[in-house]
Amino acid sequence: MIRPLPSGATIGILGGGQLGRMLALAAARLGFQTHIFAPEESPPAAAVAAQLTQAAYDDIPAIQRFARAVDVITYEFENIPTAALEAIEDICPIHPGRAALAVSQDRLTEKDFLTGLGLITAPYAAVRTGDELDAALETIGTPAILKSRRFGYDGKGQVRLDNADQAASALDQFAGQDAILEGFVDFSQEISVIAARAMDSAIVCFDPGENHHKDGILATTTVPAKLSMALSTDAVILAGHILNALNYVGVMGIELFVTPQGLLVNEIAPRVHNSGHWTQNGCVIDQFEQHIRAIAGWPLGDGSRHSNVVMENLIGDALSTAAELACDPAVAVHLYGKGVCRAGRKMGHINRITGAAG
Amino acid sequence: MIRPLPSGATIGILGGGQLGRMLALAAARLGFQTHIFAPEESPPAAAVAAQLTQAAYDDIPAIQRFARAVDVITYEFENIPTAALEAIEDICPIHPGRAALAVSQDRLTEKDFLTGLGLITAPYAAVRTGDELDAALETIGTPAILKSRRFGYDGKGQVRLDNADQAASALDQFAGQDAILEGFVDFSQEISVIAARAMDSAIVCFDPGENHHKDGILATTTVPAKLSMALSTDAVILAGHILNALNYVGVMGIELFVTPQGLLVNEIAPRVHNSGHWTQNGCVIDQFEQHIRAIAGWPLGDGSRHSNVVMENLIGDALSTAAELACDPAVAVHLYGKGVCRAGRKMGHINRITGAAG
Repeated sequence: MIRPLPSGATIGILGGGQLGRMLALAAARLGFQTHIFAPEESPPAAAVAAQLTQAAYDDIPAIQRFARAVDVITYEFENIPTAALEAIEDICPIHPGRAALAVSQDRLTEKDFLTGLGLITAPYAAVRTGDELDAALETIGTPAILKSRRFGYDGKGQVRLDNADQAASALDQFAGQDAILEGFVDFSQEISVIAARAMDSAIVCFDPGENHHKDGILATTTVPAKLSMALSTDAVILAGHILNALNYVGVMGIELFVTPQGLLVNEIAPRVHNSGHWTQNGCVIDQFEQHIRAIAGWPLGDGSRHSNVVMENLIGDALSTAAELACDPAVAVHLYGKGVCRAGRKMGHINRITGAAG
Repeated sequence: MIRPLPSGATIGILGGGQLGRMLALAAARLGFQTHIFAPEESPPAAAVAAQLTQAAYDDIPAIQRFARAVDVITYEFENIPTAALEAIEDICPIHPGRAALAVSQDRLTEKDFLTGLGLITAPYAAVRTGDELDAALETIGTPAILKSRRFGYDGKGQVRLDNADQAASALDQFAGQDAILEGFVDFSQEISVIAARAMDSAIVCFDPGENHHKDGILATTTVPAKLSMALSTDAVILAGHILNALNYVGVMGIELFVTPQGLLVNEIAPRVHNSGHWTQNGCVIDQFEQHIRAIAGWPLGDGSRHSNVVMENLIGDALSTAAELACDPAVAVHLYGKGVCRAGRKMGHINRITGAAG
């Protein structure tokens, strides 16, 4: 029997950025306390949490103290050191679980998992040596992208190869790190599905959104995505398939490419996702609350969409336009309270309501 | 020229209860820090605020330190001691301003203000002595309610008089405190309007909600209220009239009675209001964010309603039903994280979505 976490219980969150902050806000709505674990001195999430443990993710005694002080642990990013996870998993439940982390921490494991489910991914091959890279380029062709297997985020640790001559210098940049070569995909749209799975196995998916990137960073998500009903349904079924296979608890972001062959899975993230921020103003229960409900053993809420939304990230200096953007009554502003504004840094986002859901 | 408070600035909130907590959550969405001033050790709002000053409201040095540490001050309750307000008003701007507080801290001043605007209130008379009470009962008749002029809240400090014989014993209970006798009003509905006024004088009103009380405490607010378009428009015009007269900045809750003679003003509260909680799930921008936007010099957001809502307070033990209520996908749960659950204490509320706004 699933016992829902009672009001007043403490949710521990690994990571103190904007995702942790918005998770903490959602947890507070449900009466939970939050305790942030992060290496930074004043991470954005700490300003809205009851407690902060400031320590490195590989500081085992600190993370064990943290685990003893909370009732359930979740996280805002997937690259938590394995040693840290092993040190806390017997102390306190962690959701989403280790299976999801194992899959999403390694691009090769992720691709093997997805293709093992019968899903389509970009063509890929594991690459450790120059010979393996040459062979992979032979099969996959160019252009292709050489990526580190681990710790990829927002375009970091990736090298584009336009022809096979660039192979040697590209591999040098990985300095012996295991890599994966991925072929380019001919896609017409990138969409994402934000899906939640509860402890009782119930699944709720938000409507797919269409993503546009700029300089390798998500710029906008538009909901509804311009998709046929068939593809939209496919996206949701596919998401449910992935969540069930991992016996997943929590919210997952699933990035998909729309190709002539159907939907191709680009990436999965075992956490709330930037492309799900539109749910804050498009749905009664947003992705952050769905995640908190799921990991707390609560039933999921209604993920149906009442409004059409365009989410726009405010990157770097764009922060300064926030109060002006707020003049548009159709705009809801969400800022992260980050002290330092840097080029390329996500400082906030807006959700622009473009009409009632049809 | 109005300079909007920049992201990262600190909003000081007097009071640490659920209203302060939900204001702090709204402030966080806009990237602001919050600093709570409250006498309790762990008030609900402090768990989601960057800072807490724990001190009595009449601790002048403490409240002055607090005022120096924040960029703007607001409050979740209107009964702030005048001495405290005088001690901080030159240090830091306070919104809503002193005029609104003066009017709402004293039932007689409030009634005089409202009738001075040409609005209708219950019949009333100031009462300090037995003779004055006898005279007032002569004019107003029974049943009537004798109320303290100051610090009334949720039915406290009120005595019902069913006949003139009860006058002496009723007055004894006020122990020389100034009182006001109010006649009963023949009304068919109690509604309330939650209205916001920005620094640039713009006014946004949420749709009127219909309130039902139980044991003197708000039990439910239903939106839309069953009202003719004429009365609904009257309610909004009347709200705008009150806000303009006070040169008001922030959100105000205005309780109205629907009577055969039209709308009668029962009470005004210079703050976010329990009967406005439905806006959290019925509108893109809720009353808490409207209040924060107003006091921060930001433009107001869109207060239009996308969904019909019934808000139900969770009083005392009803808290234990929260996770069960959440099973209904039409229900959004809001809990206050209060440590101690007492009979009659507001522990949370739910917003039940009853359909798309027509």
